[in-house]
Amino acid sequence: MTTPPSPATDPRAAERAARVSLAMLAEPGDLRLAVHLDRFGPVRLLAALREGRTEDERIRGLVADAALRAQQADGTAELERAARLGIRFVIPGDDEWPAQLDQLAVAGQNHERGGLPLGLWVRGPLPLRALEGSVALVGSRSSTGYGEQTAGDIAAVVARAGRVVVSGGAFGIDQAAHRGAIGSHAPTVAVLACGADRVYPRAHSDLLEHIAQTGAVVSEVPLGAAPLRHRFLARNRLIAALTRGTVVVEAAQRSGALNTATWATRLNRVLMGVPGPVSSAASGGVHRLLRDGRAVLVCDGKDVLESVGSAGEHLVEEVRNPDTGRDALPRRTRQVLDAVPVVQGASSTSVARTAGIELLAAQQALLDLEARGFVERGEAGWRLSEREVHAQLRATL
Amino acid sequence: MTTPPSPATDPRAAERAARVSLAMLAEPGDLRLAVHLDRFGPVRLLAALREGRTEDERIRGLVADAALRAQQADGTAELERAARLGIRFVIPGDDEWPAQLDQLAVAGQNHERGGLPLGLWVRGPLPLRALEGSVALVGSRSSTGYGEQTAGDIAAVVARAGRVVVSGGAFGIDQAAHRGAIGSHAPTVAVLACGADRVYPRAHSDLLEHIAQTGAVVSEVPLGAAPLRHRFLARNRLIAALTRGTVVVEAAQRSGALNTATWATRLNRVLMGVPGPVSSAASGGVHRLLRDGRAVLVCDGKDVLESVGSAGEHLVEEVRNPDTGRDALPRRTRQVLDAVPVVQGASSTSVARTAGIELLAAQQALLDLEARGFVERGEAGWRLSEREVHAQLRATL
Repeated sequence: MTTPPSPATDPRAAERAARVSLAMLAEPGDLRLAVHLDRFGPVRLLAALREGRTEDERIRGLVADAALRAQQADGTAELERAARLGIRFVIPGDDEWPAQLDQLAVAGQNHERGGLPLGLWVRGPLPLRALEGSVALVGSRSSTGYGEQTAGDIAAVVARAGRVVVSGGAFGIDQAAHRGAIGSHAPTVAVLACGADRVYPRAHSDLLEHIAQTGAVVSEVPLGAAPLRHRFLARNRLIAALTRGTVVVEAAQRSGALNTATWATRLNRVLMGVPGPVSSAASGGVHRLLRDGRAVLVCDGKDVLESVGSAGEHLVEEVRNPDTGRDALPRRTRQVLDAVPVVQGASSTSVARTAGIELLAAQQALLDLEARGFVERGEAGWRLSEREVHAQLRATL
Repeated sequence: MTTPPSPATDPRAAERAARVSLAMLAEPGDLRLAVHLDRFGPVRLLAALREGRTEDERIRGLVADAALRAQQADGTAELERAARLGIRFVIPGDDEWPAQLDQLAVAGQNHERGGLPLGLWVRGPLPLRALEGSVALVGSRSSTGYGEQTAGDIAAVVARAGRVVVSGGAFGIDQAAHRGAIGSHAPTVAVLACGADRVYPRAHSDLLEHIAQTGAVVSEVPLGAAPLRHRFLARNRLIAALTRGTVVVEAAQRSGALNTATWATRLNRVLMGVPGPVSSAASGGVHRLLRDGRAVLVCDGKDVLESVGSAGEHLVEEVRNPDTGRDALPRRTRQVLDAVPVVQGASSTSVARTAGIELLAAQQALLDLEARGFVERGEAGWRLSEREVHAQLRATL
């Protein structure tokens, strides 16, 4: 690991350290911070918060809320500590900065916890730039086997197609999504509501460690920060903003995954929902999204790739039962075929009468059908061929 | 039963008999018939077909196809026979004529089997006018227990709301829909592809008899006519046209129910689809309709009533888990609450620092939270109340 440039001599290093400090002073997504950051820049804003300068009344509330933490926030020291843990802090302007996050500046400005992140803590080898075109899979922690199976299958297909699967590292759907991607030997990204050095939930230490080895564990809150509820809300906007589309696999009517869905909509991302049995409460929130026309229905990974892909990039072929042959016939020939009895033969006049088609045309159609193997002539007249009887039986199933 | 008026003296009776004869000469939904009927009227068109007049070349094809049946079609005798069976033939202009069918004149004119019906054979006490505002439930014959259960439940709710449930009398979803309505002691209507006097499928003789006793068995094809495939296609347009909306409960990718769905769309009816597990082939066709935005997702009878109802007629209340109380708190108070530890107490300064909120505001919030029973003061400081611990645990499930 190389020695980091000193904030004292390198403006870029100074900005990075200031952003770390600011992230330690404020809660994620704070809209006041976003406004002031835009006005002052990180270094001057940090100085203002540290010194508790309140002559500018527009900044007063932010200064007051940050007061108790002002002395603790040492961005430079924190960056050094992070480096020792193998964790980096990525800020706007860095090569790997995921530019799609910048859309929060407009889309997030009137929504609670909607502010731009100051930067992202990253633990793992995957450069965040790889999240371009990525897909989020989110859903209930109290998922069903059906939801987990579906999430895992979708994640596997999406990952194999070269798109990074992003989720929240939680129990249930999140876990199934990460595992699906891992099963495809693809990197996956977990965006946490706690510090990137923490393991939450504890039971996922192996999973998060694997993700950190092969993909990336990402968070905007300081190292060591606890997963408080409002940090989950802020985290959800990141999941939506980092990805091209969000798939909600299972979500009850008040699931946190619906908050991610709302952010996907605000950010003009593709919002997708996997349906389930209407009797399953775990799918209730997804069905509401679909019913309200907010999400597009997806059944599998191919549907997801089609929905997030550029036009024509992933065209899903229409699923069809094998063509029975019958469908290739002209309409009136089909009408004659339908009038041919199954077992006992009938005269061409009888067939024509039943079909409601003139005799000559019906006779020609019967000859055509005979040549194609659909009908045959028995003693009593025209009847279906054995092949066609079987074909029709199969089609009835 | 009163003696019917004689076609010889009553123009209305003459038209009715002519329409019956025409329905015996041609196949249902024949667009050529629709065009010529509009031009000549039923009595003159019938005469032209009977006599095989072909000087008008526009009618020549129709005449040729009808030739084999021309001598058999005696509408007057057929009406008498039907009356003995308790079956009536309802034509445009009758009091009970379902005026919504007339929309086929425009919507059906460029589509195979899209012509206006000449009339409808009806077996059962329900006047067809009662079909205004009715709801069709259609789906796969090879349905699953899940689909049948859901169809039955939806039909029961729709029927109890006073809307007639319409279906096709077939196995599977059709049967479940009829039974659901019958279970609500409501009339239901079966629209058949064979003659209204026939029982198809045979196993449904009890079901169809019950429907004929309490609702109506309806068909446009002549008495005794067999259920040929193109007659199913014609029948499907009637199901869509008679109803305000069509619900597809289960349909594989090539199910006939999708043909009814296509007609519902052409006719500007409300098209609805019930989702199912993505792993179920029986729901594949429905999912495609939903994914393509052609159908709106419905989970239950309330959703259906909301979708087909006039604005505000059947407002579905948003399903919500019971409010935990927490949601009623101001945002910053919630943020303080989230920073209060569960077991071990913390000072107000510690809580304020964790929450990222200024000390005075945090202290006021803590007092407010204490008064509301969310937090309590232990020896070591502020912690969650037992009630709130339980509430949060419940919310986590």
